[in-house]
Amino acid sequence: MVLITDAKVVALAGGVGGAKLVYGLAKLLPPDHFTIVGNVADDFELYGLHISPDLDTVMYTLAGVANPATGWGIKGDTRQMLEMLRAYGEDPWFGLGDRDLATHLLRTEWLRQGMTLSEVTTRLLRGLDVQSWLLPVTDDPLATMVETVEYGVLGFQEYFVRHRWQPTVRRLWFEGAEQARLSDAVRDALGTADVIVMCPSNPVLSIAPLLAVPGMRETLAARRGKCVAVSPFIGGKAVKGPAEKIMREMGLEISPRGLAGYYAGLLDGLVIDEADRDQPSADGVPVLVTNTLMQSSEEKVRLAGEILSWVGSGT
Amino acid sequence: MVLITDAKVVALAGGVGGAKLVYGLAKLLPPDHFTIVGNVADDFELYGLHISPDLDTVMYTLAGVANPATGWGIKGDTRQMLEMLRAYGEDPWFGLGDRDLATHLLRTEWLRQGMTLSEVTTRLLRGLDVQSWLLPVTDDPLATMVETVEYGVLGFQEYFVRHRWQPTVRRLWFEGAEQARLSDAVRDALGTADVIVMCPSNPVLSIAPLLAVPGMRETLAARRGKCVAVSPFIGGKAVKGPAEKIMREMGLEISPRGLAGYYAGLLDGLVIDEADRDQPSADGVPVLVTNTLMQSSEEKVRLAGEILSWVGSGT
Repeated sequence: MVLITDAKVVALAGGVGGAKLVYGLAKLLPPDHFTIVGNVADDFELYGLHISPDLDTVMYTLAGVANPATGWGIKGDTRQMLEMLRAYGEDPWFGLGDRDLATHLLRTEWLRQGMTLSEVTTRLLRGLDVQSWLLPVTDDPLATMVETVEYGVLGFQEYFVRHRWQPTVRRLWFEGAEQARLSDAVRDALGTADVIVMCPSNPVLSIAPLLAVPGMRETLAARRGKCVAVSPFIGGKAVKGPAEKIMREMGLEISPRGLAGYYAGLLDGLVIDEADRDQPSADGVPVLVTNTLMQSSEEKVRLAGEILSWVGSGT
Repeated sequence: MVLITDAKVVALAGGVGGAKLVYGLAKLLPPDHFTIVGNVADDFELYGLHISPDLDTVMYTLAGVANPATGWGIKGDTRQMLEMLRAYGEDPWFGLGDRDLATHLLRTEWLRQGMTLSEVTTRLLRGLDVQSWLLPVTDDPLATMVETVEYGVLGFQEYFVRHRWQPTVRRLWFEGAEQARLSDAVRDALGTADVIVMCPSNPVLSIAPLLAVPGMRETLAARRGKCVAVSPFIGGKAVKGPAEKIMREMGLEISPRGLAGYYAGLLDGLVIDEADRDQPSADGVPVLVTNTLMQSSEEKVRLAGEILSWVGSGT
C-alpha cells in the first residue's frame, strides 16, 4: 500500500468536468507529486490564434480565475473584441473573452518562436503562479473530427460550439493520431505514477484522444500504479455537455458496465455516483460508490481525497 | 479654375493631425472624389499582430469611432487583454484596446491569407461603413528607424511609444524604401488629382516616409493638380507629438520657410496658422494664413473648406 501523501499521481483530464477533480487533487498533492495529462484534440485555430480550450480550462481552474458560471473562460471577462468583430461584419461563433485573448496571443506567439506546446503551457501556468504540471499528451497536431448525419464532417469546435453538439454523430476520429508522438514527460509521469486517475471527462471526446496517441495504451497497460476512472455520469446522464448523447449515438452503454468496457484492460477501479448504484455493474472491476457531483470547492477536494484514500487502501 | 465640388482631391496623411483634416475633407467631398494616401512606416508587429497605427487612426476617425481624448484608438475601449498580459508577467508597452484588437486580428489574418494591405484596409473600412478610399502608400514593408543618442537604433514604435519620443534623434531612415513599390492606385490618384493636400502631419515622421517610396516624388513633381501643404505648427510649436523636437534635433527650421524648404519643388501653396504670420516666410510659395487648430468637427470642416476654396480660386 502506498501512503497517499507520498504517492505520485497523474490525472488524465479533458475540460470542465476533469478540471473540477484536478482542482481537488491539486489541493491535496504537492506540485511535484501531481501531473495532469491534458487533451489537445479540441485545439483549433481562429483568426490566426492557437486556442487550446481544454488546457485553458484546466489552467484557469488551477489558477483560480475560471468563470464559475460556465467552468470555462475567465471570471469577469468581457467581450469587447468580439463585439468589434461583429461591427466589422464578422460572425464569430466562438466565445473569445478579452482577457482570454492574452492567453491565445501569448501561446500563438511562443509557438511561432519555436517553443513546444508543453513549454508554452508550463510558461503560461507559471505566469499565473500555478506550480502544477499540466502536460499536453503530445506536442504534435491532433484534431478531433466528427462525422455528422446532418452536416457531414465537422472540426470539433464547429460541431461542439458552432452547432452546439446538436448534430447526430456517425463517427469520430482523431486526425494526426497516427503520427503524434506521446510526450516523453507524459510517458515518464505515467511510468512512475502510483495512482492514475481518469477524470470525469467525456470518455469519447476527452479521454479517447489521449488513448489514441500511439504508446499511450501500452504505457497505461504497463503501469506499475493503479488506474481508476471516475464516471462522468450521474443517474445515467452527463452532468454537462454531450457525453450521454454522443455515446448513445455511437451505440455505447451509459452505465458502469459500459464505461468499464470502454476502458477495458486499463482499469483497477471505477468511481461511480450513488445514483448509478443499480446500473449494470462492471464485472471484475472494484467500484467506489460515492457522491461525484462537484459543485463547490469543498466537494472537489472531498471527492479527490476519497479517491486517493480508496486507491491507497488497496482499492 | 476647378470647381471644388467636381475636384478630385488626394490627401497625404499620417496619424492624429492628418486624420483631423481628412475628417473635414471627407465631409465635403464625395467618396469617389477623395483619396487618402496613408503612412505605413510606423506599422509594426506585436504578439504576432500586424498593427498599422496611422491607417487605424485615419480609419477610426472616418468611421466616427476614434477616441476624442487621444485622437487614436477607439472611444470607450477597454484594456482587459493588456491587464491579463500583465498578469502573465508581460510588460506590454503599446496600448492595445480590446475593441482595437479586432482590427489587428482581422488585418493579420487577411494578410496571412494573401490579401494586400490595400485590400485589407478597404475591407476594414467598408466593414465600418466608411466609403472613403484610404490607400497605403505601398503594400511592401516600410519601417521608420530612429538612431538615437541614448539608445542607438530603435524601431519607430519603440522610440515613439516605449520611450515616449524622449531620446534625442541623430538620424531617421525608412527601411525597405528602396525596394518598396508605389501602389498603382496611389500613382493613379495622384496623377488625376486636381488638388493634393499634405495634411498637418509630422513632416519627418509621417510625410517623409511617403516621399521616400520610389516614384512618389516624381509623381508629385509631375502633378497636373495643385499641391498644398498644411503646416502642423502653431506659434512655432507642434500641436501634439514630437514634430518640433525631432525637427530641431535634425537641424530643420520650424517656420513656413523651413517647411517650404523641406517640401521644395512639391508645393503650390502653404497653409499656416495666424500665430505664424510673422515667422520667416516661404519665398515664392503662396501662403494662406488662417486658423489651423482643429478641436471640433466644425473646425475640421471649416479648415478643409477654406483650403479647397483657396486652391479652387487659383491659390
